[in-house]
Amino acid sequence: MFRQSLTEIVVATRGRGFHEVTAQVAMSVSDSGVTTGLCTLFLRHTSASLLIQENADPDVRTDLEDFFARLVPDGDPRFIHTAEGDDDMAAHIRTSLTSVNLSIPIGDGALALGTWQGIYLWEHRIRPHRRRIAVHIAGA
Amino acid sequence: MFRQSLTEIVVATRGRGFHEVTAQVAMSVSDSGVTTGLCTLFLRHTSASLLIQENADPDVRTDLEDFFARLVPDGDPRFIHTAEGDDDMAAHIRTSLTSVNLSIPIGDGALALGTWQGIYLWEHRIRPHRRRIAVHIAGA
Amino acid sequence: MFRQSLTEIVVATRGRGFHEVTAQVAMSVSDSGVTTGLCTLFLRHTSASLLIQENADPDVRTDLEDFFARLVPDGDPRFIHTAEGDDDMAAHIRTSLTSVNLSIPIGDGALALGTWQGIYLWEHRIRPHRRRIAVHIAGA
Repeated sequence: MFRQSLTEIVVATRGRGFHEVTAQVAMSVSDSGVTTGLCTLFLRHTSASLLIQENADPDVRTDLEDFFARLVPDGDPRFIHTAEGDDDMAAHIRTSLTSVNLSIPIGDGALALGTWQGIYLWEHRIRPHRRRIAVHIAGA
Repeated sequence: MFRQSLTEIVVATRGRGFHEVTAQVAMSVSDSGVTTGLCTLFLRHTSASLLIQENADPDVRTDLEDFFARLVPDGDPRFIHTAEGDDDMAAHIRTSLTSVNLSIPIGDGALALGTWQGIYLWEHRIRPHRRRIAVHIAGA
Repeated sequence: MFRQSLTEIVVATRGRGFHEVTAQVAMSVSDSGVTTGLCTLFLRHTSASLLIQENADPDVRTDLEDFFARLVPDGDPRFIHTAEGDDDMAAHIRTSLTSVNLSIPIGDGALALGTWQGIYLWEHRIRPHRRRIAVHIAGA
């Protein structure tokens, strides 16, 4: 029997960096009662991303943050959108280089993630923010 | 009652830059009659992107364009795929760094976009092109 | 009549580079019996990507590989996640700059790809790997 649900996960970030949401998304899948289907996450912001990355060695996330900080320097003198601070335009560019939506199949009632995959909200702003992720689940 | 639709949005771009399609996608959702569901956009080209970004200050789009032009310079002397002009390979790389597909949940009969999110077709070629976006909507 | 399927495509990569999977995905769509719907691909790894790019001139893929090799150098002395070799952290960053999931509408029983679009698994590790792609298809 086809069914679907639309819920929301709210994340209070502690500022720039990675916030794992895998357990919360897995709970949404469990609550939906869907055995086989599709889970789509959509982050309703333009200065933070959703990313699937390695959940084992935290050094991976440190290196990712360091690489993006070098690739998109805060306070680049060429930025003209600067009213909200040095990190604002850099955050928009980081978001454009990554993504705000993910679709993950559901099988046997669980997310079909690989062994080493975690789901992260990547906050790109320096200060803490309240971030909202829409969670759509459809299947049977 | 589950229903779905597959339609197309055609955009005549004016050359490199951002072309907002939020209103056209919202119209597709409205036409579909879906109250809760998922809207998936798929751009059928390899030298333009779909991007969700800030719809308020146009300087954000100016800075994005400027950043990508510096990151992926047109006419890079290392490019070997050059038959169609200096901007062609740069356009393929920009597309690879962004995305050609987006999935946005639908709730209360509307796209679950955040307040400051707009949907843009980002043309990476210098000259105008006719771009086709497949729009799949499913739900109830 | 709504139906869905969840299957898997396994790719034995020959090491870093592009491996086209368009024909295998098209076969999954054909096997599903879905005429109109959505096909979602999800790569269950953190050091390889799924990418839609030009399927005509192979120079495009050569230039993409060269660009990413320059943008994210193997063995960057700032990397701290280095236990698995010089290419490991670079592979995670390349994956973050691209994507592990794609959603492609299905119309008339076929993927709604553009004329020049192919679906590629982009292996970022130097050595061959066995990669698993979850394939979810839903529609009618």
